[in-house]
Amino acid sequence: MTIADAGTVADAGAARRGPGRPRDEEIDGQIIAATLALIDAEAEVTVSRIVERSGVSRAALYRRWPALTTLVAAALDVGRTVPPAVDAEGDLQAAVMGAVFGDSAAATASGYSEVRFRHRIRLVMADRALQKAYWRSHVSRRRVPVEAALRRGIERGILRADLDVEACFDAMAGVAYYQLVVRGDRFEEPESQARMKAALDVIWCGMLA
Amino acid sequence: MTIADAGTVADAGAARRGPGRPRDEEIDGQIIAATLALIDAEAEVTVSRIVERSGVSRAALYRRWPALTTLVAAALDVGRTVPPAVDAEGDLQAAVMGAVFGDSAAATASGYSEVRFRHRIRLVMADRALQKAYWRSHVSRRRVPVEAALRRGIERGILRADLDVEACFDAMAGVAYYQLVVRGDRFEEPESQARMKAALDVIWCGMLA
Repeated sequence: MTIADAGTVADAGAARRGPGRPRDEEIDGQIIAATLALIDAEAEVTVSRIVERSGVSRAALYRRWPALTTLVAAALDVGRTVPPAVDAEGDLQAAVMGAVFGDSAAATASGYSEVRFRHRIRLVMADRALQKAYWRSHVSRRRVPVEAALRRGIERGILRADLDVEACFDAMAGVAYYQLVVRGDRFEEPESQARMKAALDVIWCGMLA
Repeated sequence: MTIADAGTVADAGAARRGPGRPRDEEIDGQIIAATLALIDAEAEVTVSRIVERSGVSRAALYRRWPALTTLVAAALDVGRTVPPAVDAEGDLQAAVMGAVFGDSAAATASGYSEVRFRHRIRLVMADRALQKAYWRSHVSRRRVPVEAALRRGIERGILRADLDVEACFDAMAGVAYYQLVVRGDRFEEPESQARMKAALDVIWCGMLA
């Protein structure tokens, strides 16, 4: 395995000591799978249990994941990806709304189930360090394409020049979280969809130049 | 104790069989306090433990709280109240924003700590029946004054006639939840306050007629 190959082992927080270790992807896969299995079984996630379940040595685990927090954050994100760039040159509203709705819909379709979502929220509410790690390494990265499209909308003169793009994203995503976390409704229910659409329409109008 | 007195023992979900039972308020207070102590200690909340801790008989507990879920929901809401009516006849934006910010600020000030907020979210994410009960009996009631003010704003011609008032509330409250649940930031941090203010300003502009 070369240094270039090692670079393809994708996961934030993994501190590697150099090239030459065998089958890094496989070992990482085993570690993540074991962590996820413990999470899904609602068992306490400890290094010892991951070692036992994955068959990976404690030393190898610590080498890749010096902090358990970043490992749990990575496991929680399995099945989710950074969405592709948003085409901000055409119908901006359609493109942004498609991306905001699409990310959640794709997450559901790709097996990031509601059960895991609910479990993720429980874990991060119990552990602010995990919450911050998950925010930095995962959630904030998924926001990039939509935020870039909004900035382009400002350049194009469609959106208000003084817009706080991050705050606007918070508002749009907040509507979806409110359905799931406060109302306890499912994303795909027609009532949730209608409320989200109405709220996103109001937010969009408020962003216009 | 008279029937009228019994009516002053405020709590949703309590099924009383009639007047004449002694010291209902005290007993309810003991039950709620014991439930809250278990929640705050992060212990599993069971009827047996509440009986043991409160000194109230199992029969008395079931008489008042036929479902454990509604009792936990009521305990989670201790320290929070339905906010007063919003004055919708003057500066509507100032009144609505004050109410939206004020409810959270008052909740913090009145001892509804962030620790309990985080614990509440964990409990409701683990139990959708509790989530729905808490939504119906508590959260949805706290929305009433702001929603009424928004409806009055439509009547006054300030806000769009086609506004979905519930969706607008979701958007405004969603911004606050996003700070706490997704970003892991505290409500009172200057950055959170600035983002919430910017987002609420956008939402307000989008609601205008």
